[in-house]
Amino acid sequence: METIYLDHAASSWPKPLQVWKAMQDCMEHYAANPGRGSHSMAVKASRTLFEGRKRLAKLFGVRNPNDISYALNTTMALNQAILGFLSEGDHVICTSVEHNSVRRPLEYLKRRHGVQVTYVETDAAGNLNMDRVKEEVRSQTKLIVCSHSSNLLGSILPIASLGQLCEDKGIKLLVDAAQSAGVLPIDVGRMGIHMLAFPGHKSLLGPQGTGGLYLHPDLVLEPLLHGGTGSQSEAIEQPNVRPDRYEAGTQNTVGIAGLIEGLKYIEEKTVEAIYAAEWSLTQRMMQGLNEIQGIQLLGPAAGEQRTGLVSFTMANADSSEVAFILDQSFGIAVRAGFHCTPLAHESAGTTERGAVRASVGCFTTEAEVDRLVQAVGEIAQHIGSK
Amino acid sequence: METIYLDHAASSWPKPLQVWKAMQDCMEHYAANPGRGSHSMAVKASRTLFEGRKRLAKLFGVRNPNDISYALNTTMALNQAILGFLSEGDHVICTSVEHNSVRRPLEYLKRRHGVQVTYVETDAAGNLNMDRVKEEVRSQTKLIVCSHSSNLLGSILPIASLGQLCEDKGIKLLVDAAQSAGVLPIDVGRMGIHMLAFPGHKSLLGPQGTGGLYLHPDLVLEPLLHGGTGSQSEAIEQPNVRPDRYEAGTQNTVGIAGLIEGLKYIEEKTVEAIYAAEWSLTQRMMQGLNEIQGIQLLGPAAGEQRTGLVSFTMANADSSEVAFILDQSFGIAVRAGFHCTPLAHESAGTTERGAVRASVGCFTTEAEVDRLVQAVGEIAQHIGSK
Repeated sequence: METIYLDHAASSWPKPLQVWKAMQDCMEHYAANPGRGSHSMAVKASRTLFEGRKRLAKLFGVRNPNDISYALNTTMALNQAILGFLSEGDHVICTSVEHNSVRRPLEYLKRRHGVQVTYVETDAAGNLNMDRVKEEVRSQTKLIVCSHSSNLLGSILPIASLGQLCEDKGIKLLVDAAQSAGVLPIDVGRMGIHMLAFPGHKSLLGPQGTGGLYLHPDLVLEPLLHGGTGSQSEAIEQPNVRPDRYEAGTQNTVGIAGLIEGLKYIEEKTVEAIYAAEWSLTQRMMQGLNEIQGIQLLGPAAGEQRTGLVSFTMANADSSEVAFILDQSFGIAVRAGFHCTPLAHESAGTTERGAVRASVGCFTTEAEVDRLVQAVGEIAQHIGSK
Repeated sequence: METIYLDHAASSWPKPLQVWKAMQDCMEHYAANPGRGSHSMAVKASRTLFEGRKRLAKLFGVRNPNDISYALNTTMALNQAILGFLSEGDHVICTSVEHNSVRRPLEYLKRRHGVQVTYVETDAAGNLNMDRVKEEVRSQTKLIVCSHSSNLLGSILPIASLGQLCEDKGIKLLVDAAQSAGVLPIDVGRMGIHMLAFPGHKSLLGPQGTGGLYLHPDLVLEPLLHGGTGSQSEAIEQPNVRPDRYEAGTQNTVGIAGLIEGLKYIEEKTVEAIYAAEWSLTQRMMQGLNEIQGIQLLGPAAGEQRTGLVSFTMANADSSEVAFILDQSFGIAVRAGFHCTPLAHESAGTTERGAVRASVGCFTTEAEVDRLVQAVGEIAQHIGSK
């Protein structure tokens, strides 16, 4: 049975063929240590890292590619941003739809370093009221951290408005683009984003083990990692030069080689066209699921903007049970449970049984969406008749 | 011109063919998010991570594979160990041959958190005198950090003796296995190692973007990264369960799939046979280089134990000049400069012009070594006659 993969919000699959071919080319011809030698292979590896930076910079409206540093994953980039920026006495505002990759580092700083954290609750659909945010701004507020799109609800948060608020108040804005990089337009300058953490393996269509952080040129963070950079070897401190300051140790050259091809694919298709196609698929999915008795959809209503995921609950069924049957009996891969975002479940009222999340990607077809809808219908009927 | 790759100490290349094939298989068939879903592809991805852990555990004499957590690179593993273990008032002993991936996090802790650091100097060849270490032990000494083998000198440090000293004194031992994992036998129990940081992309023959940390079951570190683990989503703290506590965010499944094949290759060849072959190549290289006028070899003398690298200086020549000519005129990839280990250069007396490092791997041939020797001879003759 061919898998119908509807778990793109966790990791996109498959990737464009070129992603794989570029990784193969790297492994076969030049997978030396980038920036650690002057020989031709090392230079080619370094150039690969730089080409990735250039393409990421272009995608996100960043002027200097060296303002982007690579990371293992979005979590590492978020930890670099949060732990590297905040210190004792600072106040930070975030939302109830943040992922644990934001919440846990903030709670750590609260517990260990006296950082104050305010969670502004979204509505049940995951929409953020800007007035609620404004009310929470204090003189010690130094940072707002916000997910660009909820990984449970698919709602899109008002980043540009937050950027404006931050500019007005002299606050910095960190955006978690885990669910948006590659599917929502991002321009760090126009949107007032000071730090942007993004994954390589989701909608940027690269392999796992890639991701990164954009950092505004005026900011200097305490590095998350201290170590070799291939530069200023004699210095006992991490060098100030970017990206070295935030990239200690050997980077994932083969992963970045693949990521570059994902970025090229997106450049060609355009973010706008990818979003439109995914949105259309979610609307089709929502329409189909809505007709099934006992299914309750989460997130923004039909017709409203959302990223390519649809979460739902089924009456009398645990989300993991539904996901298990979808996998075992229908060969459909979705995700169930709590999606590392417990407060979003509180907002949505789904803390008990979690939710099933079906997420589409740029290769998902209408036929696959229809098969999901049909399968969910059969499961609901079966459970309803028990 | 086919490259003669003698930069294995920075990153091994090429890899066994199976490494590459396993990565392709992962990308094509199951590169879903491990541990983040219950569908078949996610389960297969999780199993891949576990298989990697099992093989690493076997190689290092670790009983419970979950005591091994993955990292982007050795630097990340070392930062997790050092920053996660030490706190204010602690004293740590390390050596003068430590890489910046050890020195810089220690200097950061010294600067910012009052940790006291003692560097025990090795002799010029990179050998460590245990008596010198013993003299430095104080009541506040909590950790000894030691490279298993110097990345500049190739010397092998007395890890088992340090382990014994640590046991006697109730100190913990962190070993940087960047140059030894896959070429020197490591048994964490027998050698008294409490933490072992290792790269996946050097002598373990995996791709870049992989590495990890072994952590003794009795130790609990402050996590370096806080974030989603796919477990205990509702908890605001990083879960205590291993490996989740030390693995926030999506792991590099495709990289680990490749690393597994590198580990299988090593299991089959055996670490002992790989070491013997590499040692024999270094002896051949040293013998050849020794006959060239103006060449000075660093590290242990001929006939003594060393890992697969030979560093040398050339009279009247900057190391980077020699490396550049080797690359451009002879197609030989070596590394020049300071190798992120400034104190080792002080010990060796090469702080001014750095050193050229030629390092072999398990696919290096005698003919390649001979071509290096011949090329260095020609360069020395040319420079001597200027």
